[in-house]
Amino acid sequence: MTRDFADFLAHCQQRVQNALPALLGNTGSEYAEAEAGPALQRLSDASSYSVLNGGKRVRASLVYATAQALGQLDKAGLDEIAGAIEMIHAYSLVHDDLPAMDDDDLRRGKATCHIAYDEATAILVGDALQARAFEILATLPSDNSDAKLALIQQLSAAAGPRGMVGGQAIDLAGVNQQLDLSALQTMHQLKTGALIRVAISMAATWCGADCHQLSQLDNYGKAIGLSFQVQDDIIDIESNTETLGKTQGADQALNKPTFPALLGMAGAKQLAVELHAKALEALSAFDHRATPLRDLSHYIIDRQH
Amino acid sequence: MTRDFADFLAHCQQRVQNALPALLGNTGSEYAEAEAGPALQRLSDASSYSVLNGGKRVRASLVYATAQALGQLDKAGLDEIAGAIEMIHAYSLVHDDLPAMDDDDLRRGKATCHIAYDEATAILVGDALQARAFEILATLPSDNSDAKLALIQQLSAAAGPRGMVGGQAIDLAGVNQQLDLSALQTMHQLKTGALIRVAISMAATWCGADCHQLSQLDNYGKAIGLSFQVQDDIIDIESNTETLGKTQGADQALNKPTFPALLGMAGAKQLAVELHAKALEALSAFDHRATPLRDLSHYIIDRQH
Repeated sequence: MTRDFADFLAHCQQRVQNALPALLGNTGSEYAEAEAGPALQRLSDASSYSVLNGGKRVRASLVYATAQALGQLDKAGLDEIAGAIEMIHAYSLVHDDLPAMDDDDLRRGKATCHIAYDEATAILVGDALQARAFEILATLPSDNSDAKLALIQQLSAAAGPRGMVGGQAIDLAGVNQQLDLSALQTMHQLKTGALIRVAISMAATWCGADCHQLSQLDNYGKAIGLSFQVQDDIIDIESNTETLGKTQGADQALNKPTFPALLGMAGAKQLAVELHAKALEALSAFDHRATPLRDLSHYIIDRQH
Repeated sequence: MTRDFADFLAHCQQRVQNALPALLGNTGSEYAEAEAGPALQRLSDASSYSVLNGGKRVRASLVYATAQALGQLDKAGLDEIAGAIEMIHAYSLVHDDLPAMDDDDLRRGKATCHIAYDEATAILVGDALQARAFEILATLPSDNSDAKLALIQQLSAAAGPRGMVGGQAIDLAGVNQQLDLSALQTMHQLKTGALIRVAISMAATWCGADCHQLSQLDNYGKAIGLSFQVQDDIIDIESNTETLGKTQGADQALNKPTFPALLGMAGAKQLAVELHAKALEALSAFDHRATPLRDLSHYIIDRQH
């Protein structure tokens, strides 16, 4: 990782981390006088616990890097957009970790939401975060109503049954099943790819990209959305639990289909490199301001956790 | 129930029931060729099962009755708005019925989603329905972007931690606890009231109500939002499981606070009558076209299931 990119990433992580507490709000404090206060405070605490737990903020960084590529890193609303997407991501992890789903106790080295709080709270945290994400987009600080609506449309499609939730359904059905490469790709394009891709397209839409730029950035998004999951599968096998912050080999243990299982480890690594090349190719018409996007693609296939 | 009102209610139920299948879409069929198809089909089937299960459609009827009160029953978009609200309502029931929440096997006389399918699917169905509801609002057939945004803002606030989900959190914390009347009202204003109230305000906003009308209709919504729950508590004690379509006395069995428990049965019935009077009072400036809204208020405190 270059020094410049490390700085950029740290800057993005800090920027969204600073924005998130206000975006989450604190429902508990509004009702602090009432008997209802403690329950709302607990929901609020559990939501903050789940969102502010030191993720890598890849999706937020993609929002900022896309804005940077279009020369609009200072445009108002980017923090809200990055925050809303991170909330959708966080809610999906909270629900994925539930006992009825992947049943994970550990996430980023900390107890998952249903372990730190309880299962019912974890279900409600996810539900609340999803609603809040759309509320944030609907109240973005701008008079451009059409752009706000476009973002809501994009995010709701990416998060719903034709996106993230659909991918999770395929993933669950894939436990103990053999998926072929095409089905595995479809699953990941929906489960992880859709939200990564939409982070880029939302930032591009918000920053007024023209339709040629939108299409190129979307090709970039498709490539890295898939390479992200290929690398995740590689990491799941190669890293130990300490580095990973979640149970190592969890997907293998569940007998879930993975890219290394289908392509071999060398084949999976080759695919990641090819997708990185595709991502760079998609950015060929962009100037030096797209350097963070290029670096992000490299970071995605280079990270070890 | 008058003949006219019975006809109106049947018409509303039919109208939203006709609209819902297309609004839900069928994700499975889009991927029918791929190996991923069956999992998406199952998610789609479970979503339809949960939404199209013959609810009373009170919230949809409130959308239509409000439009009628404003002389706009034919305005395009009402079916989509009613459908989106019913999807949010259906998702909340699917999640509330989960083992970690109220653990209900029966809903409207049929197996709950996690019984008919499985727990993971039920979690995903709820998540998918919420995303889809916002997608529907973002793509309403109209050029009025500001109105669409206003609806999304209203629904996301009503569904989130300061609304429905917050109310559910208070409800869960209330099991085996003593809430006083004020805390019980806060809980229900959020858990059930917020969505009922927003059905009215969304329809009023969409139909271009002026701010005086909005305020009066919102007062109506506040009153019936609460009377709805008071009557639910009464029904839970007085009806048998067959009439109710869910386990009779379930709230009592969970030792949840209820209005009859706090006020006595006579006191709870008196409160329902007073709230009905308040609802009618809020409509005093409206003409005969608000008759369905008036009848709905009476229906809410008169129904036996």
